[in-house]
Amino acid sequence: MSRIKLLSSYEGTHYFGWQKTKMGPSIEEEMEKALSQILQEKVDLEAASRTDRGVHAEGQVVCFSSEKKLDPFRIQKGLNALLPKDISILEASEVADDFHPTLDNVAKEYHYEVCLGDIQLPFHRNFSWHFFYPLELGTMKEASKFFLGKHDFSAFCNMRLFLQSDKIRTIYSLEIIPLPQNRLRISIIGDRFLYKMVRNIVGTLLYVGCGKLTLEQIPLILENKDRKEAGMTAPAHGLFLKKVFYELPGFIHLDLVHCGVLS
Amino acid sequence: MSRIKLLSSYEGTHYFGWQKTKMGPSIEEEMEKALSQILQEKVDLEAASRTDRGVHAEGQVVCFSSEKKLDPFRIQKGLNALLPKDISILEASEVADDFHPTLDNVAKEYHYEVCLGDIQLPFHRNFSWHFFYPLELGTMKEASKFFLGKHDFSAFCNMRLFLQSDKIRTIYSLEIIPLPQNRLRISIIGDRFLYKMVRNIVGTLLYVGCGKLTLEQIPLILENKDRKEAGMTAPAHGLFLKKVFYELPGFIHLDLVHCGVLS
Repeated sequence: MSRIKLLSSYEGTHYFGWQKTKMGPSIEEEMEKALSQILQEKVDLEAASRTDRGVHAEGQVVCFSSEKKLDPFRIQKGLNALLPKDISILEASEVADDFHPTLDNVAKEYHYEVCLGDIQLPFHRNFSWHFFYPLELGTMKEASKFFLGKHDFSAFCNMRLFLQSDKIRTIYSLEIIPLPQNRLRISIIGDRFLYKMVRNIVGTLLYVGCGKLTLEQIPLILENKDRKEAGMTAPAHGLFLKKVFYELPGFIHLDLVHCGVLS
Repeated sequence: MSRIKLLSSYEGTHYFGWQKTKMGPSIEEEMEKALSQILQEKVDLEAASRTDRGVHAEGQVVCFSSEKKLDPFRIQKGLNALLPKDISILEASEVADDFHPTLDNVAKEYHYEVCLGDIQLPFHRNFSWHFFYPLELGTMKEASKFFLGKHDFSAFCNMRLFLQSDKIRTIYSLEIIPLPQNRLRISIIGDRFLYKMVRNIVGTLLYVGCGKLTLEQIPLILENKDRKEAGMTAPAHGLFLKKVFYELPGFIHLDLVHCGVLS
């Protein structure tokens, strides 16, 4: 009996997201197909995050169990040989029988990439949101502080109200980093994320940056818990699941986060 | 009468290079098709560099003339609306009737991207050469100095010997820059380049880096002018035409270059 944890990366452009669907190809389906071929048995996968259609991953964590005794290194080699070129297995390791990629994680890091200016270089078209309006970075950084700490993020959750009753989440870190070639990266670490929460926070930050929302509106939007008051949902193709944490990284100080004073 | 200069960028992955060919789609064909549609006349294009199949461009310069009086801004807008998403027009401007993108340029800059380590992130697969062997960066930097200045680059030119009799070229600058995510950029500026010269220099530098060639062999390879002694041709998909210069940038000092002492 083996339980294997895979660290995987994929370009989501040509997939309907992580989860299997009748609409078209999914990452889960591709991985299951390749694993079943290697192991000659049916395999059920569990992933740390069900990334949406078009969303990319640099550090998705996927687990499966098998009755056989497996060599993680050979599984990784085999998968990388069989999987399409837009999915890679970066690491494979054996884990405890009761390890669960979703239930055991304590935080996730997402990156969102934005391309500014009139024209986007074609290399970035599948990996960043091309945003035409000039942005006030200073104001966006001020706005990002309101999201830090523990809040009710109802205003940043799309639909499915009945499925997710508790909307309290903690953001440990939110950084806005200028990149070469007129791009920006918004990097968010939080305990768990509501449906489309990262993309709604990004859309709201960009609305503040271009003046469609004011800084003062952000705390009110959080307080009013109304999705319609926040900014638009940023498109999927700028989003990357960067890392899944199974223990909190050292630079996160819970006491500070909970008072919301982290900068 | 108008003569228009276009600054264009493209991902070469799905094209058979710049030049029209019966083998499949080319950048030239796509641009001519779009321009003919806008201008309602046949258009002939001239490009600063005939990039090969799979090679990308960030700053290709393309020119055409028309009997009509054209507004460059509207041409750019129209082209960006009609062209496939992997080709963009970054700028358009009117130039003198006798401006020629190939004959008038004084230097070109190419970037070559290499991905190191066992596994390549899927986002880089169309944009960098995945090189498995560990590299000695210090030795590669030493080796790069031999290429600087004016040399006979016969050993770095593929085929077509009879077509290109003069193989003397000048390299103004050759830099090796570490990038995030275990990547390298090799940046080369030179006056003109022989067929596959950049990719042959890159292949040779990587051979030095991984120990397949020694530092001392480089001046001998240049001297012996034998293509078989140099390293392999690096694959096309790591190469970017970065910039075409119509006057030499200030940081290039010709007197230093010609003695080959530029570092």
